[in-house]
Amino acid sequence: MDRVLKKCHIRNRLVRECFAEFLGVYILILFGCGSVAQVTTSKNSKGEYLSINLAFALGTTFGIYVSKGISGAHLNPAVSLSLCFLGRFPWTRLPFYIISQVFGAFLAAATVALQYFDAIIYYSGDHLTVSGPTGTAGIFSTYPAEYLSVWGGVVDQVIGTAALMVCVLALGDNRNFPAPPGLEPVLVGAVVMVIGLSMGSNSGYALNPARDLGPRIFTCIAGWGTEVFRAGAGWWWIPVVATCVGGLVGSLIYELLIAVHHPEQKLTKTNNNQHNLELEVSQKESDKPDQIKVIPEQTK
Amino acid sequence: MDRVLKKCHIRNRLVRECFAEFLGVYILILFGCGSVAQVTTSKNSKGEYLSINLAFALGTTFGIYVSKGISGAHLNPAVSLSLCFLGRFPWTRLPFYIISQVFGAFLAAATVALQYFDAIIYYSGDHLTVSGPTGTAGIFSTYPAEYLSVWGGVVDQVIGTAALMVCVLALGDNRNFPAPPGLEPVLVGAVVMVIGLSMGSNSGYALNPARDLGPRIFTCIAGWGTEVFRAGAGWWWIPVVATCVGGLVGSLIYELLIAVHHPEQKLTKTNNNQHNLELEVSQKESDKPDQIKVIPEQTK
Amino acid sequence: MDRVLKKCHIRNRLVRECFAEFLGVYILILFGCGSVAQVTTSKNSKGEYLSINLAFALGTTFGIYVSKGISGAHLNPAVSLSLCFLGRFPWTRLPFYIISQVFGAFLAAATVALQYFDAIIYYSGDHLTVSGPTGTAGIFSTYPAEYLSVWGGVVDQVIGTAALMVCVLALGDNRNFPAPPGLEPVLVGAVVMVIGLSMGSNSGYALNPARDLGPRIFTCIAGWGTEVFRAGAGWWWIPVVATCVGGLVGSLIYELLIAVHHPEQKLTKTNNNQHNLELEVSQKESDKPDQIKVIPEQTK
Amino acid sequence: MDRVLKKCHIRNRLVRECFAEFLGVYILILFGCGSVAQVTTSKNSKGEYLSINLAFALGTTFGIYVSKGISGAHLNPAVSLSLCFLGRFPWTRLPFYIISQVFGAFLAAATVALQYFDAIIYYSGDHLTVSGPTGTAGIFSTYPAEYLSVWGGVVDQVIGTAALMVCVLALGDNRNFPAPPGLEPVLVGAVVMVIGLSMGSNSGYALNPARDLGPRIFTCIAGWGTEVFRAGAGWWWIPVVATCVGGLVGSLIYELLIAVHHPEQKLTKTNNNQHNLELEVSQKESDKPDQIKVIPEQTK
Repeated sequence: MDRVLKKCHIRNRLVRECFAEFLGVYILILFGCGSVAQVTTSKNSKGEYLSINLAFALGTTFGIYVSKGISGAHLNPAVSLSLCFLGRFPWTRLPFYIISQVFGAFLAAATVALQYFDAIIYYSGDHLTVSGPTGTAGIFSTYPAEYLSVWGGVVDQVIGTAALMVCVLALGDNRNFPAPPGLEPVLVGAVVMVIGLSMGSNSGYALNPARDLGPRIFTCIAGWGTEVFRAGAGWWWIPVVATCVGGLVGSLIYELLIAVHHPEQKLTKTNNNQHNLELEVSQKESDKPDQIKVIPEQTK
Repeated sequence: MDRVLKKCHIRNRLVRECFAEFLGVYILILFGCGSVAQVTTSKNSKGEYLSINLAFALGTTFGIYVSKGISGAHLNPAVSLSLCFLGRFPWTRLPFYIISQVFGAFLAAATVALQYFDAIIYYSGDHLTVSGPTGTAGIFSTYPAEYLSVWGGVVDQVIGTAALMVCVLALGDNRNFPAPPGLEPVLVGAVVMVIGLSMGSNSGYALNPARDLGPRIFTCIAGWGTEVFRAGAGWWWIPVVATCVGGLVGSLIYELLIAVHHPEQKLTKTNNNQHNLELEVSQKESDKPDQIKVIPEQTK
Repeated sequence: MDRVLKKCHIRNRLVRECFAEFLGVYILILFGCGSVAQVTTSKNSKGEYLSINLAFALGTTFGIYVSKGISGAHLNPAVSLSLCFLGRFPWTRLPFYIISQVFGAFLAAATVALQYFDAIIYYSGDHLTVSGPTGTAGIFSTYPAEYLSVWGGVVDQVIGTAALMVCVLALGDNRNFPAPPGLEPVLVGAVVMVIGLSMGSNSGYALNPARDLGPRIFTCIAGWGTEVFRAGAGWWWIPVVATCVGGLVGSLIYELLIAVHHPEQKLTKTNNNQHNLELEVSQKESDKPDQIKVIPEQTK
Repeated sequence: MDRVLKKCHIRNRLVRECFAEFLGVYILILFGCGSVAQVTTSKNSKGEYLSINLAFALGTTFGIYVSKGISGAHLNPAVSLSLCFLGRFPWTRLPFYIISQVFGAFLAAATVALQYFDAIIYYSGDHLTVSGPTGTAGIFSTYPAEYLSVWGGVVDQVIGTAALMVCVLALGDNRNFPAPPGLEPVLVGAVVMVIGLSMGSNSGYALNPARDLGPRIFTCIAGWGTEVFRAGAGWWWIPVVATCVGGLVGSLIYELLIAVHHPEQKLTKTNNNQHNLELEVSQKESDKPDQIKVIPEQTK
């Protein structure tokens, strides 16, 4: 079988990266939305709100493990966009990443619907509704709590995504106190966990345009209808736009309070050696994609 | 005591590996089914669905720690079979591994029944039934939810085991972003955790033919009778067959989207040295078994 | 954007450290108090006591990741004070750290109030009260259980903060069994977790004067009024004073039972080399702040 | 303050080890029994069975971090005894370790009683009873479920402690797949966690004679009376004796199935160098105590 597989080898780096972003988001949404399906259709007997928090966290973790070595594991258009603004990701690749991410979320939602087909039919009495006592659209996308104003929803998503971005930038900042090698995926998952624990009740902590839009398009097509875009006073655009604003706000906060104040590196003899060593390492890793790293400023 | 023990030393590698697979699955099922026994017989007062998820996850983790250095810790016939298909495990050892795994699960189920003997008698009123309000067969094996169709059950187990296999292959892929050394068992446990959180309500996420068949045979012999094979419209074969199909599907997905596209290694001088170093290391580790690793293609 | 950001570079080390302490405590309280807001306003449907424990633990973890490389991540006046007593932090910086910590907690409380504005209004019927069935001041600061005496509250906070300090000192003690490099933040978060699980019901485990006082000042200003200082028979001073006493008690316990008995280091040739190596490392890290480390006594 | 502290330096290694075992068990029981006090006196509103599992797990973790570098962190007479049988701990130190462990547990129980004094009085109506609706002795020691027979209790504790010992030996076995350096305490805590999840409902998973006997003696003295020794048909001796038997059974299982079959080491040139290196390391660590390690057999 190995020989047959090898014939499928693709050399183009962008294609490989898009595959990885696709699979990463697919894993994230498969586990994340799957847990909402489980809690909803089992009427809280096979899980609770905490299981949803845990599943989105671990979904993020394994989405990153599946893709980080290939594409850098953005898995989130708001993250990709922020990295473009910070000059750490080329604008030309942005649309390809975003399309892969949204498509991965779309297909994962379809897989969850397939896996929970019998359960959803049984739970909803064969009548797919967006809201109401047996509403099931909330399995796939986020909807606001009844008390939430539009402005409150925007603030909620900006704060949530900004908090995500501050923590993600800190975990990758080699001049502060970065995550231990190989454990970034676990710690980024833990960030998603804590945001779900502390910022989840207003509107379900989308934090990610692809996570919300992909499954919403799926539900629109698959039988829930255009109500998924009208519900919550046209809620759908907030998880798309406010999260991108939040990503940028978070980047600015981390840069202005921490990263720009890192002292300039002094190259002593010892450091020089270490520097060479690092160059060798980075040459070896030159196939690797742009990671979320704060690259130290070089002395001129 | 040390001297007496040394006389039991067995040189044969296959025997050692079978012992390790046996003990690994034994630990996994002892903790996993034990938690179901605890939640069932305490009527949810000493645990909940989440504790069962946690116990199967940690059971997997410690089952791997107990056996990985000896047998590679497959602990699952579906995993062993997939590795055979991928050419990373010899077909000749497959039957020995499978027998050890099923026997480990069988004996662990017997141990759980022994430890919870008083509790099961008290809970079920001394009348062992498969289903119903005081049914206790579900402590040992999986049974489908009442709404689940046969086809839905097959899809559920294929998707679940495929997701497991994608994540396990990613965690061991040294050319992507592998698990940090020594923490694979924890992360594979976390995969089992998230599958339980997101794919557990349809049919109890068997994911593993040995985990389901071994305890089912035990319950058949120990007093629950042949009903354990007839229940759920003859459910028993689905966790055996569909999980093997799912393992293969997952392997294909990871290979086709990620692994086959890894760039061929370029051997520069620096790499060469590193390569030699790796060879030394692998010589030293030559006693170790076939691990779940994506071995980089050698340049010719 | 990078160029604009670089102009904001500040060279003064104390300013950078204060920024880091501010942001660290801000992240801690944003997640911590956010989770209390979520559990309270969702009436336990989007979380439970355990989620609050988890959120304060992970808030601590990410507060430390955000600041440890810059300021040492005290994030707690009681910790800073204990380190001063132990001679590992200069008294001159203490007031700056404390002000940054309290201000970070204050602003985080304001952010939580902003994010949960709609929810708090909806939950409390637009009437901000400290206690009673729809009291919301407990989202921000701690209040004692009705049965707790003043003396009981003091004992509770002294024991809790002492336990925190013993564990934190052990995790950083290189001559005992320190936390693995890069994982201190996770383990200190786990200490906060276990204290919340085991010492949380008497008075909400403040453990930290800044965590309690900053948000309390915010609630006093923002509409809950001076009742926040009068409630619980003038409870507010206990999380401020007793935690500082507890930090000192914990330091003494760890020093007297473990740290002072570490054997004096013998410098053999091998050790010497290692020692030189360490000196090089510490020179390179000379920009880093005073970390919570038990520095081995030098042989004279 | 540093100078005053240094005068308390004690050179005697056994005294240092006893201090460490004392403090380690103290931390373990302070957090463990504290969580039972919290769940009991708050009537499950500030925690649930899962929090007790988590608190004993994390208590174990930090008990080990506090003492492992000094005393090897047995923290359990059953573990110390098993290590004596395996020839890895000298019999002469056994009584000192056991006394320190029991005394640590005793004093921790007293501290929990002090911290929860107001709460226990309020909860029990100022009437300390062992069992019944407001019984509080279960905060400190284990009592069997009403259905459990004596024989069932012995089996329960033997299986539980054997499972603990198998996992602990595997995590420390350098010739299998050991825990990553510095993370043993976390993983041993996770073993305690999974045993609590899967073997806790019969009799509260004592697993440790000191954990159970120390607090039981405290309750006997402090007001619950000799009923604590009579309750459960004289249950008290089972967590003392059966756990020691279980530790030995677990050691035998791991040795016979895994450890004795490790291949004898072949010393090639490369290995030789590595061996020398290891010798240097162990010389440097010669102050460290007997750790739970499977030392490879030397070739003659």
